[in-house]
Amino acid sequence: MMNREKIRLGIIGIGNMGSEHCRTILAGKCPETELAAVADLRPERRAWAEKILPAGIRVFGSGSELIRSNTCDAVLVAVPHYQHETVSIEALEHQLDVLCEKPAAVRASQAERMIRTAERTGRTLTFMFNQRTNCTYRAMKKLLESGELGKIKRINWIITDWYRTQRYYDSGSWRATWAGEGGGVLLNQCPHQLDLLIWLCGLPVRVTAKCQEGKWHHIEVEDDVTAFLEFPGGATGVFVASTGDLPGTNRLEIDCERGKAVCEGNEVRVQVLEKNEREICFSSDDPWYKGETRNYLLETDGENLQHRGVINSFAAHLLRGEPLTAEAEDGLRALELSNAIHLSGWTGETVTIPFQVKRFDLELDKRIAGSQITKTGDITYETDHNGTGERLSGSDHTS
Amino acid sequence: MMNREKIRLGIIGIGNMGSEHCRTILAGKCPETELAAVADLRPERRAWAEKILPAGIRVFGSGSELIRSNTCDAVLVAVPHYQHETVSIEALEHQLDVLCEKPAAVRASQAERMIRTAERTGRTLTFMFNQRTNCTYRAMKKLLESGELGKIKRINWIITDWYRTQRYYDSGSWRATWAGEGGGVLLNQCPHQLDLLIWLCGLPVRVTAKCQEGKWHHIEVEDDVTAFLEFPGGATGVFVASTGDLPGTNRLEIDCERGKAVCEGNEVRVQVLEKNEREICFSSDDPWYKGETRNYLLETDGENLQHRGVINSFAAHLLRGEPLTAEAEDGLRALELSNAIHLSGWTGETVTIPFQVKRFDLELDKRIAGSQITKTGDITYETDHNGTGERLSGSDHTS
Repeated sequence: MMNREKIRLGIIGIGNMGSEHCRTILAGKCPETELAAVADLRPERRAWAEKILPAGIRVFGSGSELIRSNTCDAVLVAVPHYQHETVSIEALEHQLDVLCEKPAAVRASQAERMIRTAERTGRTLTFMFNQRTNCTYRAMKKLLESGELGKIKRINWIITDWYRTQRYYDSGSWRATWAGEGGGVLLNQCPHQLDLLIWLCGLPVRVTAKCQEGKWHHIEVEDDVTAFLEFPGGATGVFVASTGDLPGTNRLEIDCERGKAVCEGNEVRVQVLEKNEREICFSSDDPWYKGETRNYLLETDGENLQHRGVINSFAAHLLRGEPLTAEAEDGLRALELSNAIHLSGWTGETVTIPFQVKRFDLELDKRIAGSQITKTGDITYETDHNGTGERLSGSDHTS
Repeated sequence: MMNREKIRLGIIGIGNMGSEHCRTILAGKCPETELAAVADLRPERRAWAEKILPAGIRVFGSGSELIRSNTCDAVLVAVPHYQHETVSIEALEHQLDVLCEKPAAVRASQAERMIRTAERTGRTLTFMFNQRTNCTYRAMKKLLESGELGKIKRINWIITDWYRTQRYYDSGSWRATWAGEGGGVLLNQCPHQLDLLIWLCGLPVRVTAKCQEGKWHHIEVEDDVTAFLEFPGGATGVFVASTGDLPGTNRLEIDCERGKAVCEGNEVRVQVLEKNEREICFSSDDPWYKGETRNYLLETDGENLQHRGVINSFAAHLLRGEPLTAEAEDGLRALELSNAIHLSGWTGETVTIPFQVKRFDLELDKRIAGSQITKTGDITYETDHNGTGERLSGSDHTS
């Protein structure tokens, strides 16, 4: 733990989300975080920083320079997915704590190396799973952990309200390419839902998926995914995601032994049985048992801190050992599920988690070799980081 | 067409549904149908008939006797699934028109032979798809045919409100066995939904399914199904069915190029876009286009005639050539989809429709050979025929 009142944070990558994080901190929403430095490879982003940021905040031309500058205690990594690994590892090796944007990386093998480095260096590594701060999902988590609904039997998440037009994909040559981004709706839009699914229901043990590539757009990666999930306890699930549905749906149904919770439109409707269904099944005389349920709308505390919530818990963790929003392993798990869905879609096989990391890497490498772009370095990079399907406010998100 | 005012109908099999049909007709709900005769192999059912039915209605000890008695113009076949084929074909061969309960049979190969016989003999063959008379589904059919929503892109049907306790399965030794019934939730509870799905959205061309056998009950057949469907035009769908979920869900979402319709709780919520999404995708300047939708609740005529609706249209067809509720081919199609889901579940493969009928038959034969019961003849037989998930009124449904 640090012997300070604030952490000195450097933000590496000040595109879409990095610049948003700058504004959040400068607006005083992160009282225990001091914005000490920013870094970007792109001159136009550095020019923006020099113009907008208060004097005293250092502006560097690369993540490496920032990391080696001794100006920061910790970094927020907001560079393209493929670079999460190298930038995060470099920071960890220089004894900086790391909060990295989602997805943890493109390949589970990268996230593994990041975590091993954090362990070896004794630094903190965490990921920007800001949807965990959403009061609705927190209330669902609490409900499921309370045992009121008993064991989970079935999950159905239709998350198709990620609509994007062709213009979105045309706004960057790296976008929705294997070489530039490493995936489509799974890697750009859905990391939050994959994390929430695991957070709420656990990590599936088997995945059978259909990933349709360029189904709704002229792109090379998947924009339509249906995955069948099997969990260790026998529960099953369906996860449907798309950027081609308008108006889309965001409906999460979790069916349990003692009832059901359905989350749609920020409302969670709960139905609770009088008894455990597993008991009813084998004790009731009624072949067509219907029974009664107690129905209610799940109450929440209304708090939805999003990115600042994650930044603040990161700071509180470094300063006082308070719990992080997500552990480093959570980033790996979400990526394992994402990779497993890709791998199943590519091979047509049911994939067991943990899967063969080498096989995934080889399959992805094949796709990168055939990709329309092969440049993954200095690219103008914008992602959908807020995980709400909502367009971010501000003017520089379509650059 | 007949030169009569009423059709003389014989009901073969007067268990659960057959007896219900007797009561419907005797209550005067089928003005163009005269109940002329009934048949049942079971003495206790014949005793019931002798006691309850008005004098003049002949009671036979077998379907064959009824068919050969020259007392009927047409028959309603309400015998166990496995016998649908033989009874229906015998009736058709004796120049009787046939209304057969769902499912059309157990094997698509059986339904094929039934249809070929009807064609050869020039008789009418139709199936009891009474859910087609439900005003909600009729209104959805009309909506989809009107073109208001454009082409279908995605379907998601969670039909898990078919809850059954172990007592249900224990109420007949034939129940939920490969030899006695030929399947579980697909064949007993879901034929209506499979028919409606095809009626509304067309027959899928490929099916990838997970069928879990005896997951929630001590039974040998499937009580939990998740199927991924691919349609000829590129649309995809998910179909989830179970008899183990409490409280279950019945939610059908159909996402189209110009909007979306969601049917849940007998209500259909419709959202209509200003333009076709396929046009928006490639013409909008907005990467995150949201647009506006016109939202409304779908109006219905409130009419839900169910079984009497099917019987009445059958009579009107025979008397005046009016349209049937369902064509013979519709019975085959629903069974093809059901068989394809089974076959995919058994083999772990994606199954193309039309599938190899021989392969299905061989796979089912293997399961019949290993079945707990091998007797398929004179068994007390009750099924869930009404397709609503509701328990039927009356006292003799759990015999």
